[in-house]
Amino acid sequence: MKTSQFHLVTQREVPADAEIASHQLMLRTGMIRKLTSGIYSWTPLGLKVLRKVEAVVREEMDASGCLEMLMPAVQPAELWEETGRWDQFGAQLLKITDRAGREFAFGPTHEEVITEFARGEIRSYKQLPICFYQIQTKFRDEIRPRFGVMRAREFLMKDGYSFHMDADCLDRFYQVMYQTYSRIFERLGLKFKAVAADSGAIGGAVSHEFHVLADSGEDEIAHVPGTDFAANVELAEAIAVGERAAPTQAMEKIATPNARTIADLVEQHGQAIEKTVKTLIVEASEDQGVSLVALMIRGDHELNAVKAEKLPQVAAPLRMASEEEIRAAIGAGPGSLGPIGLELPLVIDRSVALMSDFSAGANEDGFHYVGINWERDLPLPEVADLRKVQAGDPAADGSGHIELIRGIEVGHIFQLGDKYSKAMNAVIMDENGRGQHPIMGCYGIGISRIVAAAIEQNHDENGIIWPEPVAPFDVLILPLNHQKSHRVRETADELYAELQAAGKEVLLDDRPLRPGVMFADAELIGVPHVLVIGDRGLDNGVIEYRRRGGEQKEIALDAVLGLFA
Amino acid sequence: MKTSQFHLVTQREVPADAEIASHQLMLRTGMIRKLTSGIYSWTPLGLKVLRKVEAVVREEMDASGCLEMLMPAVQPAELWEETGRWDQFGAQLLKITDRAGREFAFGPTHEEVITEFARGEIRSYKQLPICFYQIQTKFRDEIRPRFGVMRAREFLMKDGYSFHMDADCLDRFYQVMYQTYSRIFERLGLKFKAVAADSGAIGGAVSHEFHVLADSGEDEIAHVPGTDFAANVELAEAIAVGERAAPTQAMEKIATPNARTIADLVEQHGQAIEKTVKTLIVEASEDQGVSLVALMIRGDHELNAVKAEKLPQVAAPLRMASEEEIRAAIGAGPGSLGPIGLELPLVIDRSVALMSDFSAGANEDGFHYVGINWERDLPLPEVADLRKVQAGDPAADGSGHIELIRGIEVGHIFQLGDKYSKAMNAVIMDENGRGQHPIMGCYGIGISRIVAAAIEQNHDENGIIWPEPVAPFDVLILPLNHQKSHRVRETADELYAELQAAGKEVLLDDRPLRPGVMFADAELIGVPHVLVIGDRGLDNGVIEYRRRGGEQKEIALDAVLGLFA
Repeated sequence: MKTSQFHLVTQREVPADAEIASHQLMLRTGMIRKLTSGIYSWTPLGLKVLRKVEAVVREEMDASGCLEMLMPAVQPAELWEETGRWDQFGAQLLKITDRAGREFAFGPTHEEVITEFARGEIRSYKQLPICFYQIQTKFRDEIRPRFGVMRAREFLMKDGYSFHMDADCLDRFYQVMYQTYSRIFERLGLKFKAVAADSGAIGGAVSHEFHVLADSGEDEIAHVPGTDFAANVELAEAIAVGERAAPTQAMEKIATPNARTIADLVEQHGQAIEKTVKTLIVEASEDQGVSLVALMIRGDHELNAVKAEKLPQVAAPLRMASEEEIRAAIGAGPGSLGPIGLELPLVIDRSVALMSDFSAGANEDGFHYVGINWERDLPLPEVADLRKVQAGDPAADGSGHIELIRGIEVGHIFQLGDKYSKAMNAVIMDENGRGQHPIMGCYGIGISRIVAAAIEQNHDENGIIWPEPVAPFDVLILPLNHQKSHRVRETADELYAELQAAGKEVLLDDRPLRPGVMFADAELIGVPHVLVIGDRGLDNGVIEYRRRGGEQKEIALDAVLGLFA
Repeated sequence: MKTSQFHLVTQREVPADAEIASHQLMLRTGMIRKLTSGIYSWTPLGLKVLRKVEAVVREEMDASGCLEMLMPAVQPAELWEETGRWDQFGAQLLKITDRAGREFAFGPTHEEVITEFARGEIRSYKQLPICFYQIQTKFRDEIRPRFGVMRAREFLMKDGYSFHMDADCLDRFYQVMYQTYSRIFERLGLKFKAVAADSGAIGGAVSHEFHVLADSGEDEIAHVPGTDFAANVELAEAIAVGERAAPTQAMEKIATPNARTIADLVEQHGQAIEKTVKTLIVEASEDQGVSLVALMIRGDHELNAVKAEKLPQVAAPLRMASEEEIRAAIGAGPGSLGPIGLELPLVIDRSVALMSDFSAGANEDGFHYVGINWERDLPLPEVADLRKVQAGDPAADGSGHIELIRGIEVGHIFQLGDKYSKAMNAVIMDENGRGQHPIMGCYGIGISRIVAAAIEQNHDENGIIWPEPVAPFDVLILPLNHQKSHRVRETADELYAELQAAGKEVLLDDRPLRPGVMFADAELIGVPHVLVIGDRGLDNGVIEYRRRGGEQKEIALDAVLGLFA
């Protein structure tokens, strides 16, 4: 492709409303163009990358025996009513009324449609296991679309759904999908991590997220380098090691008139932070007979809301009590709470259960207790895993010490079980002629999101540094001053033809621009291999080779093809 | 692919609600499955065909220098309001309100979006000409979806849009697209016809439809075999040849008490049908100062509504007057109308202008005039082309005599002019630095419709006869009694591997079924080449080769690969 026959419109300025690098660079390179909030056109340059991602996903899904199909974008409300999700899914579900007044949704996901398909098409265990997938445009009416295609409303997704007669079969196939996803991200040339995840609203027990690693990632991942241990911080188990030491101090009430935070207590009263606790008051779940519940974690730890929500005592979603509620229930402010004399149900973190000689608020403004010891000064309350893991924590599987990294979720695989097949009464005959609800798995990949994630992971201050497998072009030829130099033009055209014949996708920049502008665009759009052709080099039979983000060297003209052999 | 690893679910029964062959066969082969009215899933078998069509379209568009991009399905109402189509497009436009209360449409076409894109991205004549296209899911809320994917609500379409500085450039590119479309349908292996067409509501002057020819086609095409002349019957010009003969009869009023139709007049009163006329009363356009207008065509001709609507005297859409309106205006019923004494504006067809000694109603129930002659008995009224062409008519371009054939519209190319660029104020600088509204063309192909049209053109009573370029598989291997015969299984597996290695897409039917069922499915799904492997043949070193819809012969095992060389 020559730029004169292509549509390449770049811009120097960083767009004002683009907050993250991938959004800025996709706009600056002209890969995407905003139509309206959360809705983008993919230009020819952007689509080339999108299609490369799509092709790798398709090839690997096919190689694993999955069958591609294409389900409708527009789905009837009745199906979603069968599973209860018409109401449960929330405002992200874009609802549509047709000319006849019937209700539909622009599909954000296809569990209902595939289950409807399966209950019509699959009658016998002999047809199983089977996995259908599609690569299709989906819509989620995000309340706050942002970050370009990273969190768009309209997006391209691969979604797959498998059907099995029993959980063992699903388990085996789930492993196949885990490997398939790993191969996909390897082939895309991306650093990634598969992490154990919370399966959230989709349902089911086992699930893994696939994250493209990037410092700008929204998700935090706990992992142990060099091992398989990796989990979303929301889910990573925090363990407490060791035993509780014997008491050495008497419990004593001290005046702490200016201590409202843990930091105050440490600073003003010389308490080691590991000897302090935070008492957090949250809304109780409906069946508790009380309105508030207390949770306690160590002063240097952070509450994990996902874990807290899973406690039977706690209302979901988690809601912290207001200062007014706390004062009404306890008679003290949030900075002076503690276990001594507390009249609310109390759940403490595993680490807190191992503390001795610790300090906490006295449930009276301006006072704390120091030297508190469980089972001497008060009984040990219920113990649970309540905190977020931190860097350096021991991993729950004993594999080593946790490091925290950031990632962008681009894939998610779930074991759904019979949630959908049961709700929609999909029945398949087993070997004994008995009807069974099939066990399902589902497997998503955000195709358009991967493009943005690849950029987040691979860019510098000058632009994108495409991994070769997803680069819009393999090679960029820059003929300097080609308008004036016949020799430069001719050499560029020859190399262009030779590289194309060798199966490379080549972009030849034949725009009548100054070299500086051409170099800047080359860095911006990030084609991996750049060949700079100029008269000065040709005098010596060489051209300049630049690896985007890497080496830069002179190379003999007749050695150029060898670079790509 | 082996059937055991594929999803092949066929049915014997003809589905009750499927009216046409392609719809029946797509359901019976299991290519599609209905989700709800006008909305279908494409199964793995159907998608294979859809993707083949898509690939050919993409390759040929790329080869003609068009640039693929991907625009959003969901389009903001404001854009459609700029062109006035938010209200004009009618109920086919599926309107959507998002969670914030903003209005959108599920795009049925993308003129507005591409013009919005162009006005942001294209500043200079140097970027032109350029043609963008996409292959994308569209939605039209048909009032009566029918015929399966032939007239579905959700469908896959290729839509392309070109931009030019002047009409000459558009003309040249339009020819390129005309040739591109012709190549596409040739490569798809379909008999087709490019026909001059009425460009209807999309706007613009020049347009051509591309029809896949099939007796079941909804459209009628006038063409002259062996020539380039082809036009949609709605548009084909009807010419009248020869001169008007001199009068030979006196005009006479006769009693025709039982003659209410042309047929009655011919039968009861011995009038030659070519000497009769039909007088049709239609609603007048608003600026006529009258409510009704009369149109007159020869007794053996048919009114062409599209032509009639284009008359300035006639309201569009065309509305025939009711009997009550006719009686109130003329004092006689619809079967007794004629030009003598008629007090409405009258437009006559070209053929009528050449008539002499003709008969017509007397505008008095039970009476007709015979021997009427223009310019002797009454002045010649306004003459226009009003009738549908008929088989045997001379073509307007003098190329010969018209034949009528039927087709299915699968492509449409338009010269739009500046309709959209002007309405949306897209401005591009010309060579003199003056802003101009670019001239546009648009080019559509119904990808999913082509699949149905290919079946309408290529099937028999047993099933589909796929043209090779769009067949879901190239070769089908049928191993008879493979459960029992190790030799049959082994031979089938070997051939399967060899043909795959030779680059063929092969389906090996390894289902444990009776030969009769396997043969019936083979005919139904219509794979072009079928290899039947049985013990009896293998005794003699041969297998049976069947060309779907064609020859059937024995062939030596070692000659099989040669068939596909």
